[in-house]
Amino acid sequence: MKEYKKLSASELAAEKALVEAKYQELKNRNLSLDMSRGKPSKAQLDMVSGLLTALTDPADCIYEGMDVRNYGNLGGLPAAKKLFSELLGCRPQECFMGGSSSLTLMYDLLAKGMLFGLNHSPAPWSQVEGRKWLCPVPGYDRHFKITQTFGFEMITVPMLPTGPDMDRIEELVKDPLVKGIWCVPKYSNPDGIVYSEETVKRFAALEPAAPDFTIVWDNAYCVHEFDGEYLPFPDIISLAREAGHPDMVYEFASTSKITFPGAGVSVMASSEANLAYLQKLLDIQMISYDKVNQLRHVRFLKDKEHTLALMKRHAAIMKPKFECVLRNLEKEIAPLGIGHWERPKGGYFVSLFTMPGLAKRTVALCREAGVVMTGAGATYPLNADPEDSNIRIAPSLPPIEELEAAMEVLCTSLKLAALEKLS
Amino acid sequence: MKEYKKLSASELAAEKALVEAKYQELKNRNLSLDMSRGKPSKAQLDMVSGLLTALTDPADCIYEGMDVRNYGNLGGLPAAKKLFSELLGCRPQECFMGGSSSLTLMYDLLAKGMLFGLNHSPAPWSQVEGRKWLCPVPGYDRHFKITQTFGFEMITVPMLPTGPDMDRIEELVKDPLVKGIWCVPKYSNPDGIVYSEETVKRFAALEPAAPDFTIVWDNAYCVHEFDGEYLPFPDIISLAREAGHPDMVYEFASTSKITFPGAGVSVMASSEANLAYLQKLLDIQMISYDKVNQLRHVRFLKDKEHTLALMKRHAAIMKPKFECVLRNLEKEIAPLGIGHWERPKGGYFVSLFTMPGLAKRTVALCREAGVVMTGAGATYPLNADPEDSNIRIAPSLPPIEELEAAMEVLCTSLKLAALEKLS
Repeated sequence: MKEYKKLSASELAAEKALVEAKYQELKNRNLSLDMSRGKPSKAQLDMVSGLLTALTDPADCIYEGMDVRNYGNLGGLPAAKKLFSELLGCRPQECFMGGSSSLTLMYDLLAKGMLFGLNHSPAPWSQVEGRKWLCPVPGYDRHFKITQTFGFEMITVPMLPTGPDMDRIEELVKDPLVKGIWCVPKYSNPDGIVYSEETVKRFAALEPAAPDFTIVWDNAYCVHEFDGEYLPFPDIISLAREAGHPDMVYEFASTSKITFPGAGVSVMASSEANLAYLQKLLDIQMISYDKVNQLRHVRFLKDKEHTLALMKRHAAIMKPKFECVLRNLEKEIAPLGIGHWERPKGGYFVSLFTMPGLAKRTVALCREAGVVMTGAGATYPLNADPEDSNIRIAPSLPPIEELEAAMEVLCTSLKLAALEKLS
Repeated sequence: MKEYKKLSASELAAEKALVEAKYQELKNRNLSLDMSRGKPSKAQLDMVSGLLTALTDPADCIYEGMDVRNYGNLGGLPAAKKLFSELLGCRPQECFMGGSSSLTLMYDLLAKGMLFGLNHSPAPWSQVEGRKWLCPVPGYDRHFKITQTFGFEMITVPMLPTGPDMDRIEELVKDPLVKGIWCVPKYSNPDGIVYSEETVKRFAALEPAAPDFTIVWDNAYCVHEFDGEYLPFPDIISLAREAGHPDMVYEFASTSKITFPGAGVSVMASSEANLAYLQKLLDIQMISYDKVNQLRHVRFLKDKEHTLALMKRHAAIMKPKFECVLRNLEKEIAPLGIGHWERPKGGYFVSLFTMPGLAKRTVALCREAGVVMTGAGATYPLNADPEDSNIRIAPSLPPIEELEAAMEVLCTSLKLAALEKLS
């Protein structure tokens, strides 16, 4: 098959007739498939359901002298801090244990910034007219919605194969109205890009004009390789400390894609000074997050080595799904010159860039044929993909046979969208 | 023993010498006891630890077609809504399921008011200069700290045996700057007062000037009788709807004193319109709270009848502790005319009013003798007890023999404080 752009008018017409017929055939199957969100599959959930019996009787609930069934210990279970500090490479005392959602911790951090200001803030952010936030794109839709709801002007920064464009960021942070940046440093959402060591070091060495500039380091996929060995990754908190900016970084992680999504535990890691500042505010809001579930995770995951072994078992379920996505794209789309993509080795997504102007139409065609994709544009602030090009593929939830069908629909839809455009 | 006020100077001196000797003897025991917070005892936690095994394998986690181990369903598990609607008397669709802390839900409600305004707010509360909040006193210290942190002027309203002084409240809400009120309607914290039916109806019929006036109805002790039968209680949400103010009330409850404190589930109940408004904002903050723990609670607590039977077993542990407190107060303090108190039949506290000017000194003397009480003044906004009189006694945590010792210290400390004052 030739590249679509090189087809003559009659070749285009012939190909369009073929693809339309194929699309119609797929539609007639009345599929109902979902590739919209990064949800683990039932097989993964079953695999980790030993978590349910990690604590079964009262004696199990006493750990290092603490009865986790009762009130107390705002910062969380020390053993849980230790576990996450191993996974992230920071110190246990730099960890604050959250509830079942790191997204909620991030939202809450920005809400605290809005209402009270963070450590070093000259004023609450709600009082800063024209406040801005940096958004590497494509990125995570739920991040962007948080800064949207809090009224930040969102400034996009392109993602490069090494991470966000640091030249651009180093310029942008000279503006004191720029209060922070969203980062998913390892297996970025959606591209699956791992920030290079140089990128991480340049983040740690940033010299922002705002004294309360906030790097939200959402390390959601810190141990989430699905292809190959665990990839060690630099600890931004130590690097920022060494670079003389100990209070610039807030790192987040959770077990949502290690144990149960939305029913695991989360962590916020930051300098001890930042945590001391925040805990004064958090002490008004809660007594502590759920320490029973924290201990359940400590007993189930044990330590880094044991957690990485578990992640290998997740990988065994995930890898064939990503191979299916990539195989379909390479076979069906690559020869046509109507799209390109990264080949991630971890995370939960494949990020497809169509020829400009095709993403919305492709996703609409998919939906018409019974396949729900993440909304086109979702990977950009305010849903504004300037090229209408990026589609996030989330292959984790469907069983492999459903995924094959969904990818057939996606590839056919993209072809049809391209042919409509070129005709 | 005569009332202290009626003692002659020499009688006072003689009594003071006796009480000082007794206090010294107690100090020499080097006690280390805690009656500061409403924490359930280990015996109670052991009794409910069947919760740990309410879900043990993957099949247990599928409920009414939903796999609670995966993302989704912002409002929470329908079966959990049903359970709480039975306990509170409202409708299931009026329930939003929270995480392990109703305090966090309340904080979050007020934070949403501050940042965005609530349903019917003309503006975010952070933009309302001179915003005010009504605080029945004595009340719950953690409530007052929330309105303090959000910069409300806190206007105290006296508690009567029927609940807060409604005459006063009906006057105060004519001020449009008054944005809300804290209420613990059943077994109020700390007095253990149950609002009368008339009080509840007057709340539902309030005609506040502020269109976004917010009744925070913290029904923390909705099924928490420790003495006698379950006391049915009117449903404020229905009453407010019938009175034409469907959106004025936000009710809260949790299982913190039914199952595990800080590791249970919580609920916010309000009109469907209020929940729809809030869920748009909450959708930015989370995917859902922990549905696995919600299902654990549904399977363990089953329904209202089963929950009330469990509360009877809590009561069997709690009642002797409250009897111990009241017996000591009646025997040691009542005849001296230096304090008075309510005799609650539910909740977690006994609220002791000393002769004016003695609370701080009494609590300090207790601490010196190894007994930690809730800080004097904590039951008033800004810790400002105008009479320096109220002491909250929290007898639930210590085993009964420790409680006897602690009450001996408390009564002796109060006597000594009174004698110091009168001498």
